[in-house]
Amino acid sequence: MLSRFGFTNFGRRFVHSQLQPRVDIMLPPGTFSDRVALITGGGTGLGKAMATTISRLGATVALLSRKLDILQKTAEEISSETGNKVLALQADVRNPDAVKSAIDTCVSDVGLPSIVINNAAGNFISPTQRLSANAFKTIVDIVLLGTANVILDVGKRLINSRQGASFLAITTTYTNFGSGFVVPSAAAKSGVEALTMSLASEWGRYGMRFNAIAPGPIQTKGAFSRLDPTGKWSKQVLHRIPTGRLGQPLEIANLAAYLVSDYASWITGEIVTFDGGELPFSAGEFNHLTEVTDQEWDELEAMIRNVKGS
Amino acid sequence: MLSRFGFTNFGRRFVHSQLQPRVDIMLPPGTFSDRVALITGGGTGLGKAMATTISRLGATVALLSRKLDILQKTAEEISSETGNKVLALQADVRNPDAVKSAIDTCVSDVGLPSIVINNAAGNFISPTQRLSANAFKTIVDIVLLGTANVILDVGKRLINSRQGASFLAITTTYTNFGSGFVVPSAAAKSGVEALTMSLASEWGRYGMRFNAIAPGPIQTKGAFSRLDPTGKWSKQVLHRIPTGRLGQPLEIANLAAYLVSDYASWITGEIVTFDGGELPFSAGEFNHLTEVTDQEWDELEAMIRNVKGS
Amino acid sequence: MLSRFGFTNFGRRFVHSQLQPRVDIMLPPGTFSDRVALITGGGTGLGKAMATTISRLGATVALLSRKLDILQKTAEEISSETGNKVLALQADVRNPDAVKSAIDTCVSDVGLPSIVINNAAGNFISPTQRLSANAFKTIVDIVLLGTANVILDVGKRLINSRQGASFLAITTTYTNFGSGFVVPSAAAKSGVEALTMSLASEWGRYGMRFNAIAPGPIQTKGAFSRLDPTGKWSKQVLHRIPTGRLGQPLEIANLAAYLVSDYASWITGEIVTFDGGELPFSAGEFNHLTEVTDQEWDELEAMIRNVKGS
Amino acid sequence: MLSRFGFTNFGRRFVHSQLQPRVDIMLPPGTFSDRVALITGGGTGLGKAMATTISRLGATVALLSRKLDILQKTAEEISSETGNKVLALQADVRNPDAVKSAIDTCVSDVGLPSIVINNAAGNFISPTQRLSANAFKTIVDIVLLGTANVILDVGKRLINSRQGASFLAITTTYTNFGSGFVVPSAAAKSGVEALTMSLASEWGRYGMRFNAIAPGPIQTKGAFSRLDPTGKWSKQVLHRIPTGRLGQPLEIANLAAYLVSDYASWITGEIVTFDGGELPFSAGEFNHLTEVTDQEWDELEAMIRNVKGS
Repeated sequence: MLSRFGFTNFGRRFVHSQLQPRVDIMLPPGTFSDRVALITGGGTGLGKAMATTISRLGATVALLSRKLDILQKTAEEISSETGNKVLALQADVRNPDAVKSAIDTCVSDVGLPSIVINNAAGNFISPTQRLSANAFKTIVDIVLLGTANVILDVGKRLINSRQGASFLAITTTYTNFGSGFVVPSAAAKSGVEALTMSLASEWGRYGMRFNAIAPGPIQTKGAFSRLDPTGKWSKQVLHRIPTGRLGQPLEIANLAAYLVSDYASWITGEIVTFDGGELPFSAGEFNHLTEVTDQEWDELEAMIRNVKGS
Repeated sequence: MLSRFGFTNFGRRFVHSQLQPRVDIMLPPGTFSDRVALITGGGTGLGKAMATTISRLGATVALLSRKLDILQKTAEEISSETGNKVLALQADVRNPDAVKSAIDTCVSDVGLPSIVINNAAGNFISPTQRLSANAFKTIVDIVLLGTANVILDVGKRLINSRQGASFLAITTTYTNFGSGFVVPSAAAKSGVEALTMSLASEWGRYGMRFNAIAPGPIQTKGAFSRLDPTGKWSKQVLHRIPTGRLGQPLEIANLAAYLVSDYASWITGEIVTFDGGELPFSAGEFNHLTEVTDQEWDELEAMIRNVKGS
Repeated sequence: MLSRFGFTNFGRRFVHSQLQPRVDIMLPPGTFSDRVALITGGGTGLGKAMATTISRLGATVALLSRKLDILQKTAEEISSETGNKVLALQADVRNPDAVKSAIDTCVSDVGLPSIVINNAAGNFISPTQRLSANAFKTIVDIVLLGTANVILDVGKRLINSRQGASFLAITTTYTNFGSGFVVPSAAAKSGVEALTMSLASEWGRYGMRFNAIAPGPIQTKGAFSRLDPTGKWSKQVLHRIPTGRLGQPLEIANLAAYLVSDYASWITGEIVTFDGGELPFSAGEFNHLTEVTDQEWDELEAMIRNVKGS
Repeated sequence: MLSRFGFTNFGRRFVHSQLQPRVDIMLPPGTFSDRVALITGGGTGLGKAMATTISRLGATVALLSRKLDILQKTAEEISSETGNKVLALQADVRNPDAVKSAIDTCVSDVGLPSIVINNAAGNFISPTQRLSANAFKTIVDIVLLGTANVILDVGKRLINSRQGASFLAITTTYTNFGSGFVVPSAAAKSGVEALTMSLASEWGRYGMRFNAIAPGPIQTKGAFSRLDPTGKWSKQVLHRIPTGRLGQPLEIANLAAYLVSDYASWITGEIVTFDGGELPFSAGEFNHLTEVTDQEWDELEAMIRNVKGS
């Protein structure tokens, strides 16, 4: 009746029409006019999608990552599409001096950002016993300390200039209960969520908000290259996503734009899970029964009715 | 240095300009054209605000509560403002037959809803030892069973008609760690959140999404009459809201509209906390230090530097 | 490489010697001398195991459930084994008057309890659309209101007599993210956890502590009759329990005894998950990679190293 | 009626007799005979208390920290009290080579540990804007990478030697929602909790368990020197601890001993909050009403009854 692994056949079914993505821009035009938005890791994937949406809504965007060539190409692409200025800033977020220097450039060129999206990350699957102490440290340095470096640098400037801002971090759903095989990422991203909630409390009085989005699997070009090199996982994961599909970059871009906008000015310290239901489905002890058929339920019902009271 | 109660002077300070509410309609016009939205407890307060926003975005709205006179007045008010039809349905959500009958009317008059907001609730402050078993049961019946009655009735119809829908529940932040003095509400609302996450997993394949908003204190007329009869609490609570102000009904209405819209079609099983940061601020062990002044920090720093290593 | 359902072969492997159960009594003899412990649903299964352990540690135990014949048999069995008095009290926990009357008997026969374990429950698997409003209500009445009825009755007596007590509830791991197919139970048990945390805060000053244990699958006679009538689930669930085995009743009994003892007098408002790791394993997005072999990891590593930087 | 800061007068009241600590050894004598236990930061405070308890229960204990002189003094003190061998190992946990070398010594002198308690930490209060990137990094290096270094080193040896083990980490309650003014610690400890849950899932099949205790304020000599240099906080925090007192080192030692013992061999991936109820009390929105008197409740009740239905 059930599959050997107690899992469902979601992957084979159609996606209900009401669960199709809607990916046009959600916020009103000009929502971010006169705003400067700094986005780390913004050259590709989710970062690029968020940068494009925020630029289209009127912001001047500054992209920051190690790879200047990719950044410049993306910056030109976005700018030519939206008509708004996009800056490319080269820095390794692990290096506080490099971060400072890049933000100096940002401030002098386009101004101090009032939107900051910490999206840069590093991750790959591996049994933990195959990791050196140094491999573990590298992920923590990029994800947790890199985020802290950007927040500390921009935050101090904001406090000094009495300007508010909205910070957003991109984390992951496996901060909730951890996950094997991506352990440094789980640890570092959990740290980023704690940082988010902590500074929401501490720096709210300076006009700063801090939130995060914890995405499930979102389909981008090369998204899963280090997490799913064989491509099998991306198919199997559909078995445990109740909405029956992967997420799309422009969906998270709309959510991100909302959270950093003034429409969300009373939301702070919040981690929004954005995963098509993958986490609650996976965690719930009896959700595998999704694959039991109606006829089998008739039989099960009869069996259960025959159980004597306990 | 610190106040006797270790708490902050947030209440006295200004609200940073970037934390001011933005309350114009966020979603594009016509987002809910051709949609029917059922909202329980929609006659006043948050329910009315959500109903108005969703009506303005094109939906036909059906309000459902015990008090037909209030509902009819609200329905006319909203309809005259937005130009869209608003239905008033009388039912006590505790009574499954009354719920069925009201939804029969909804279906025959305007169609089966594809947006359902369970907003009806009951709550008042009291030491738990002053509650009778019956008082406890009344709150559970309204909040938890009332929500279940509406979901079961509409959900079965949706499955039978192969139509999808988006459900939203309004819960509370004190589901996370409970709260004294509102114990039946804490228990019942926690049940609603479990219901929300459970059905997100189970009924996703039928095209249904289930989410909740857990609001902190939002300023509505009479909002706190049973929770804060003296009016003192609403002032004191500002001391632990990092954004420095109460929420506004049109802010939660924008968030609710987003969550039930197709822009959020990959969000399900999620409880979005909407509280100005009250929960993380209250829960965090050292957030009371917000009230330490800069000069005092200089002194503390010196003391800490003098501590010998441990 | 991976199974179709992305799950592991835990079920087939041996259980590591250090993860074998240790089920002798853990607490020192006489830990509960002079204590009266009330245990609902104590006639069978986990309740009986906890009652036996607590009786063996010196307490006078009062069992309470609807079925007097089963209770009396269990009471005699435990008493003859431990040499301590065991009382059988008949009451349907849904009925506050019956609860009051049973506790009147308890008080007059053996005294007011200072240990209360709410263990009575009702649950069965079913698609939610097959449930009537009344079926849903029945589970909520037993699990949530039944627990509230016992706590309200005993709690008021304790406050009046200025006596402290330790309360324990038995909940479930699917309160964390809900679960399909056991939805009324998920909702009601979540309510019980909120009740637990709320009263820990409110009634601590009266000398009362409130905690819960959220167990995963524990092997008792007939434990899964309504949750796993075919017996397949109990085998499959091993695939997602990192400790490789089901729990045993005497293990939870030792944990329960600890939590209600004075050794835990600083623990209150806490829900202890007791599940062999089932919940974190199920929730963690990449834990299914447990089934990848060492040789396959060599290949995956090579593929990942070849991914160009992002 | 309420204090200006909406907080309670717990601090002034007596501690209920049933909430007094019980600090004799809880587990049976010889529970840890033939076991080797490695405890980082074990020279003082909680680490020393756990080391003493575990030594008294028969284990050979290895203490590991930077300060050899303190460690040796503690080792001798414990050993002379319990009669069991206690080893002092010098290493800075931030340095993987130093950790490796210390554990080499441990293995050659007393054997590979099957109990590992990661207790070493660093923390101090500071506004985050006063922290340099380097100060932030130092805390993350000690707390998160230090823990990872120990776990990676011991874990690989355990897998190679096919030996199981029980790991325990000491974290904090402000991982749940973060906390201002201790932000690097909040981030790093959250990472440790994710590490704990992740490896519970991944390494369970190798016979390893991973748990954590998240303590609230426990009274040790010099415990709060960097967190409460003025001594005011330790008094004020009593206002939000429902059990009315701070925790004691021997209480957490009993809990820790339980969690690393075979009695808990089905507990893994669990974070046990041990805080006297501080977290739920602080987080719960209406718990401040604890300070309303009975007479005032009579008045409030009358006011609430007069509110017209909504």
